[in-house]
Amino acid sequence: MEPFLNPILQGKPPQPLLVVISGPSGVGKDSVLMRMRELGFPFHFVVTANSRPQRPGEIDGVDYHFVTTERFREMIENDELLEWAEVYGQYKGIPKFEIRQAMASGRDVILRINVDGAATIKRLAPEAVFIFLAPASLDELRHRLLLRRTESPAEVERRLAMVADELAQLPNFDYVVINHADRLDEAVGQIRAIISAEKARVYPRRISL
Amino acid sequence: MEPFLNPILQGKPPQPLLVVISGPSGVGKDSVLMRMRELGFPFHFVVTANSRPQRPGEIDGVDYHFVTTERFREMIENDELLEWAEVYGQYKGIPKFEIRQAMASGRDVILRINVDGAATIKRLAPEAVFIFLAPASLDELRHRLLLRRTESPAEVERRLAMVADELAQLPNFDYVVINHADRLDEAVGQIRAIISAEKARVYPRRISL
Repeated sequence: MEPFLNPILQGKPPQPLLVVISGPSGVGKDSVLMRMRELGFPFHFVVTANSRPQRPGEIDGVDYHFVTTERFREMIENDELLEWAEVYGQYKGIPKFEIRQAMASGRDVILRINVDGAATIKRLAPEAVFIFLAPASLDELRHRLLLRRTESPAEVERRLAMVADELAQLPNFDYVVINHADRLDEAVGQIRAIISAEKARVYPRRISL
Repeated sequence: MEPFLNPILQGKPPQPLLVVISGPSGVGKDSVLMRMRELGFPFHFVVTANSRPQRPGEIDGVDYHFVTTERFREMIENDELLEWAEVYGQYKGIPKFEIRQAMASGRDVILRINVDGAATIKRLAPEAVFIFLAPASLDELRHRLLLRRTESPAEVERRLAMVADELAQLPNFDYVVINHADRLDEAVGQIRAIISAEKARVYPRRISL
């Protein structure tokens, strides 16, 4: 039996996966991940580094890795980040050590990221499992964005206008999961099935970062 | 949105799949399928044509399509069979109409077949989903074969000797599922997950037969 075959054939555990969950703003990426945590999925959720100040109630290393702007720039220079972005002077990025540690521990890694970020990850780690979380319709997405009241109506429309471009990135993804309103567990179940199936591949994906 | 993208993106049902479940003799293919039926999986199970006489308790069109040897040879000549084999003068084969009808109805088709037969299906329908059901060990397989008491000890050893060749066919398969003794539902759940995941592919498989 060749060594690249699935290790489950030799009674060994399957290789850990890097699972990228992406999709338009407001589609419910956070809700899906929160529900997966609630259900006790044995995954490592990637904690993003952030240069903005810690807010009351937020836990360093859980919600974000809170770092200073100086430290963040150092991380960029040292190539410590898998992906990063600056929005209005605030830095956000994914530390590579987060993913390396998690994968070395044998656990699957789940990474939630916007569609642009997913494209970057695709270039860096094409063998990751790319899941596009899609809304059932634009109307449903508008409703959800308005409901969360963190964006102005103009900003909501701006985000909706981006969806067509985001859908155009679907070819970068392996799977598409529709997150219907009030059917969160269906989407979560579908993601669970995808992860299960990926672990049963005859030839597992090989992640190197 | 391109038409070849998953129809779920347009609120339509996913395309039906052709799922081939194969594996060594005695690995538990029948048990897995029986359990899937019990659980009410909404699949079309392919009924094989068979030239041997109907036994008491067997239902024509359910257990097998019972046909005469003459009719079977006619089916071969008319290219009505996806795959067939003759063993000791007894014909067995898969009628194409079974699969066409089932797929036209929008249901997934599940086809249980030995590893040689799966290789034939792979040539005819490479876009089918190929699942290899594997034993946890040769000892477990030997135990199962002896337990069912339909083969002599010599025949059991002959079948075990075939397993290495069968495992060598793994590259023809997409997925491998271990059917551990007393953990049938785990294998069934894994197959369910695979089918679910396949329905979420951004680019669905396109079966033509």
